Amino acid sequence: QLENISLTKHVKFQQGIPESRNYKGIAISLLVIVAVCSLITMSVFVLTPVPGAANSRLTVWDLFKPEFAVHDPKARWIGDAEVLYRNRDGHVIKFNFALNETDIILRNSTFVAFKVAKYSLSPDMKYVLFAYDVKQVYRHSYTASYIVYNIHTREVWELNPPEVQNAVLQHASWGVQGQQLIYIFENNIYYQSDVRSNSLRITSSGEERVIFNGIADWLYEEEILHSHITHWWSPDGERLAFLMINDTLVPNMFLPQFTGSTYPKSQEYPYPKAGQPNPVVRLLVVNLYGPTHTVELLPPESFRGREYYVVMVKWISSNHAAVRWLTRAQNASFLTVCDVTVGSCLQRHEETSDLWLTRQDQEPVFSKDGNRFFLTIPVKQGGQGEFHHIAMFTKSFRSDQSDVRHLTSGNWEVTKILAYDEDARAKYFLSSFSASTTGLFSRRCLTCDLNREECTFFDADISPNKQHVLLQCKGMRLVRWSPSSLSSLCPLLSLLLKSACQSCSLPLSSYYSLTTVLQYVPVTELPLKLTYPLDFSESLLYGLLLIVDGAPGSQSVSDKYELGWDSVLVSCDEVIVARLDGRGTGFRGQMVLQQVHQRLGTVEVQDQIAALEYVFSVVLQGYGAYLTLMLLRSTALIQCDGGLGAAETTFCLFIMFFSFSANVHFQHSAELIKHLIKIGANYTMQIYPDEGHFLSLKGEQHLSESLVGYFRTCFQDFSTPLPEELGKEEDD
Amino acid sequence: QLENISLTKHVKFQQGIPESRNYKGIAISLLVIVAVCSLITMSVFVLTPVPGAANSRLTVWDLFKPEFAVHDPKARWIGDAEVLYRNRDGHVIKFNFALNETDIILRNSTFVAFKVAKYSLSPDMKYVLFAYDVKQVYRHSYTASYIVYNIHTREVWELNPPEVQNAVLQHASWGVQGQQLIYIFENNIYYQSDVRSNSLRITSSGEERVIFNGIADWLYEEEILHSHITHWWSPDGERLAFLMINDTLVPNMFLPQFTGSTYPKSQEYPYPKAGQPNPVVRLLVVNLYGPTHTVELLPPESFRGREYYVVMVKWISSNHAAVRWLTRAQNASFLTVCDVTVGSCLQRHEETSDLWLTRQDQEPVFSKDGNRFFLTIPVKQGGQGEFHHIAMFTKSFRSDQSDVRHLTSGNWEVTKILAYDEDARAKYFLSSFSASTTGLFSRRCLTCDLNREECTFFDADISPNKQHVLLQCKGMRLVRWSPSSLSSLCPLLSLLLKSACQSCSLPLSSYYSLTTVLQYVPVTELPLKLTYPLDFSESLLYGLLLIVDGAPGSQSVSDKYELGWDSVLVSCDEVIVARLDGRGTGFRGQMVLQQVHQRLGTVEVQDQIAALEYVFSVVLQGYGAYLTLMLLRSTALIQCDGGLGAAETTFCLFIMFFSFSANVHFQHSAELIKHLIKIGANYTMQIYPDEGHFLSLKGEQHLSESLVGYFRTCFQDFSTPLPEELGKEEDD
Repeated sequence: QLENISLTKHVKFQQGIPESRNYKGIAISLLVIVAVCSLITMSVFVLTPVPGAANSRLTVWDLFKPEFAVHDPKARWIGDAEVLYRNRDGHVIKFNFALNETDIILRNSTFVAFKVAKYSLSPDMKYVLFAYDVKQVYRHSYTASYIVYNIHTREVWELNPPEVQNAVLQHASWGVQGQQLIYIFENNIYYQSDVRSNSLRITSSGEERVIFNGIADWLYEEEILHSHITHWWSPDGERLAFLMINDTLVPNMFLPQFTGSTYPKSQEYPYPKAGQPNPVVRLLVVNLYGPTHTVELLPPESFRGREYYVVMVKWISSNHAAVRWLTRAQNASFLTVCDVTVGSCLQRHEETSDLWLTRQDQEPVFSKDGNRFFLTIPVKQGGQGEFHHIAMFTKSFRSDQSDVRHLTSGNWEVTKILAYDEDARAKYFLSSFSASTTGLFSRRCLTCDLNREECTFFDADISPNKQHVLLQCKGMRLVRWSPSSLSSLCPLLSLLLKSACQSCSLPLSSYYSLTTVLQYVPVTELPLKLTYPLDFSESLLYGLLLIVDGAPGSQSVSDKYELGWDSVLVSCDEVIVARLDGRGTGFRGQMVLQQVHQRLGTVEVQDQIAALEYVFSVVLQGYGAYLTLMLLRSTALIQCDGGLGAAETTFCLFIMFFSFSANVHFQHSAELIKHLIKIGANYTMQIYPDEGHFLSLKGEQHLSESLVGYFRTCFQDFSTPLPEELGKEEDD
Repeated sequence: QLENISLTKHVKFQQGIPESRNYKGIAISLLVIVAVCSLITMSVFVLTPVPGAANSRLTVWDLFKPEFAVHDPKARWIGDAEVLYRNRDGHVIKFNFALNETDIILRNSTFVAFKVAKYSLSPDMKYVLFAYDVKQVYRHSYTASYIVYNIHTREVWELNPPEVQNAVLQHASWGVQGQQLIYIFENNIYYQSDVRSNSLRITSSGEERVIFNGIADWLYEEEILHSHITHWWSPDGERLAFLMINDTLVPNMFLPQFTGSTYPKSQEYPYPKAGQPNPVVRLLVVNLYGPTHTVELLPPESFRGREYYVVMVKWISSNHAAVRWLTRAQNASFLTVCDVTVGSCLQRHEETSDLWLTRQDQEPVFSKDGNRFFLTIPVKQGGQGEFHHIAMFTKSFRSDQSDVRHLTSGNWEVTKILAYDEDARAKYFLSSFSASTTGLFSRRCLTCDLNREECTFFDADISPNKQHVLLQCKGMRLVRWSPSSLSSLCPLLSLLLKSACQSCSLPLSSYYSLTTVLQYVPVTELPLKLTYPLDFSESLLYGLLLIVDGAPGSQSVSDKYELGWDSVLVSCDEVIVARLDGRGTGFRGQMVLQQVHQRLGTVEVQDQIAALEYVFSVVLQGYGAYLTLMLLRSTALIQCDGGLGAAETTFCLFIMFFSFSANVHFQHSAELIKHLIKIGANYTMQIYPDEGHFLSLKGEQHLSESLVGYFRTCFQDFSTPLPEELGKEEDD
């Protein structure tokens, strides 16, 4: 099972400078940070609490109001001094910060006129690809119809494969040069050298639900690549690497579709369960200039004839791509560099593990000549086990293996290497927060100097020439509100704050660490986050809700901004919400993460039980549902009296399921419910018919209403003493 | 749509004597009534309340205790003075009441030894067919494996088609002579002339889910014949009439099966929805003695090329069978008598209707010579519309049509003609209860003289020589408990009462009639039944629960004994349960029944609304669920405050569904839930995964618990004034 981690979590922006400081570079970076901040961070700050305005409470409907919605501008670099993004009004903007010029590339009225949901701009900035009738398939994938729009002439035409009308495509996007276009139809790849040229069919083996070219099957999309796109352009646009995924031997799962037609339908898709064959994957490279021919890149000898995955493909030059191959058991991987002109791959790095390998989708950062690359790899840090740190791999001319040099260390983790600036010999990276900042290598935190009341959780994107950075603020630590924080914000922000939140009472959070002493395991400090009402008073009684969602490698305790149904309970119902990152969660070293190896649902459960002394009720959520059920099995702690008048003590169990979910199958809910019926258990349930794993807006609203209503009833007429201090407060 | 009526409802046993009374016949009948009563009625009387023992309350678990279970002895005539039945201990008993001899034919230990659930005795009483591994399919049908058991030698062998091992059969049963056996395997009929002879395959066209021989598809089983058996033996055992049902053109419905295997499965079955093709049916007769040949009986000329049903087949002699053919629209039918030796059918009776025809599965009762037969047909009774009464049809030698003579009349209905005694010229029939007993024809009620405190709801089975009757008591009117009723019961009954019910407080019932005056419709009196606690007091406040289940042609208000989850609420929770037979329900004439023609969900809803002035909450049940939702649409009356502390007034809506139900498809629940989610409605739900329309015992228990729990919560902290007198009490 692949670990499910997100690469940017609870981070500071740090710069490692091994030899000499590049003051100029840093200065420019800081300048840009301020400039872009005003454009991008507004959506997050909108929800900062306002003093003395705690009279109005948050409702479920507030959660879905446009003024509470987080706007993602999807900003990206289109030059060394230019970014492209979509503003809150829906205009697509080109911003040149060197010249301080702003151009509207596409007006919001164009989106409205064509009823389109998604757009992308051609590399030459002359055409737009608009997607309409967008229908979600799995987490990332969707089908849509496409039109090509000439920005200058406003001419429009449909994108269709030859001889096909009103085609529904699985994917369409620009290449990397001029007006190069590719699209995927019926699992085959089509190429156009420019918007008006004829389509060339690159593959012909595509077969619905069986053979996938350039697009992922469910497994690769959800579990391996975390994207539905399985093709990669060479930097010069001359070649396209793509996967051919063959699901012939994989058994089909089916999802019933009950509504919308006279007779119900059933949708089948290949889904390899444990013990069933995996899809067979091939990595092919096709050249697009001149007569097409296709070269296959083969896995290392030792993998042939075995089940393996292709987990990462990255072009490092026009003729070379880095590829990582991973065994099905996920305990051995090879990073190879392949010459696509001849199809030969050379092994550059090998990883093995007695447990399982992590971060296998990580892209190495290569030097221009390809002789040197950087990766984060687990490095042992004394008794605290391994933590992910940056290692530099240099081609050795004495042996097949690379020379390795470790660049960072400490009991904290580098979450992502952003860029390598060869001129400055600087590596830019994101790291998890840690109190300890000492280490062997000199480094400097670029974002720590920013006003901490404004932002403490960033994502970052370095400009092509490594001189600037786009920072996206994703959250801030609101332990206590301070009047100064408001005045320091941009004027635009203050305006937005006024309209949306003047009368809202939003929650605050405190952070603790829970110390567990467990047999055979060193002392582990588990982060615990309590979210409590703005008008919290120690003299009042509060309900405590522990939200369990500790999928392996995930992180629940962070400064990342989130506003959900539980915020409503905190705001209105004298409830404190707790989240614990138990063993098995990510960003605190391999030892914490891999505690769950071969014993899923045991040690995480013990950790949640440790927090449960203070727990009133437990919420089920995704993998958290599994944990909670294991926990129900192992403890009688979580009992919730049905109300003052009820005669019997009952478990409060609220099961929700989405009958069309490709990820969490209804069959497991069905088995659980059958068992509950058999033992005569009492529980509440809600089904969302024909809803997939990702709910529709209406479904989301109803779900929030149901959860708030359920816990409101559960907490009503019930009082529990306020928990005593859970542990020492983190030094910050 | 076929109306769904049950033929024995709320009845008195009456005898029509057109010319002279047959006192001897009546005397013997009465004698037998008493004799058999002691054997058969016990199961019903077990639940009579006992005075002064109201200290203990009924629980949901009581409902499923063996001592509360109703035992059906399945008694049947095997001679003019002999009945065969299974007693409460599980022994199969032959009882000769002429000799007052009792024989144990099969011991209960035999059933245990072979782990069998069903049995049937060969006509010569020498062999038993035992069914094991019985798996329910639809309402009536099941698959099983069978063994033949020699009662004398105790020898046993499996029943298998030639060349097949461990066969799972769709049906197996004895013929009418000696050891004749037929069974159905893979939709084909197999015949054995005796237990040891080779099997003869009668049909070869059978195909799973497509062509059905001698066994019904879902439509014929559930909606047309109310049985899965579509073959009929001639009285001499020489011939077998059977249906060949061809579902080739019928679209398939699918039912997902989630549990029990790695990947979920889906089960398909032909299910014609409105506007889709029906199965094509053929009626064939095969002769079994000598070389087999098959004759087809053809429908009337006017039906050929149209969609029609075969709704009734009854042998009236060795060579003649009566067959009724009905159009798909159910507005025209022909009763024909067919000579099976040549396959020619003569039309004997035609019925048409502007609305729809009722009782089309009714079997005519023929005289021995076949020239005369009796049917109940709708007969106009002044301004009150048509009621079902007995008509005698005599072959006319002047025309093709029969001469018709009406034998009964009045504003009450004959529900079933039991027998025609040619010697006494007496017709025995069951009728619906009616206050009026005057009429043009002399008749006498045979069961009215029985102690009314003991039984008021009967089913009856006349002996072959028409001299005796087996009576099965199915309920009694318990308006008020009287001490005398206990003493008059058989000693065995008293014993059972003592053990099971001494400490139970069971509900009593009162009957009212609700008068509605509706536009264009004459005054209709609608029966209303209130069930209330034994210790009912006018000074207390009670919740009122209206149970809606008025499927067209059904009857909710009767003396028929029923003990369900609602009885628990009455017994324990100060709840009064109301049931109303609105327009569209059966046994009160065609005018009441056919009010719903082309306007289902309108007038019945108005009737329930009329009762709703007193209603606190509404339960959904089968067709009642549809009614209730129509009612939700048309009234805001049924609101139930969520509790004292709740801020909003909400509907109390509890939706339950069985995901594997072949009758009520989950797709409709899914559409409803989607709509409720869309409008943000609040409701409670319960799913029974992979449960069919007929719940497993565990499912039934959980359902009862859920319903009682739900309404208990709903009624808690809520008081409603006791309804005033709803109408005048029926004269009785």
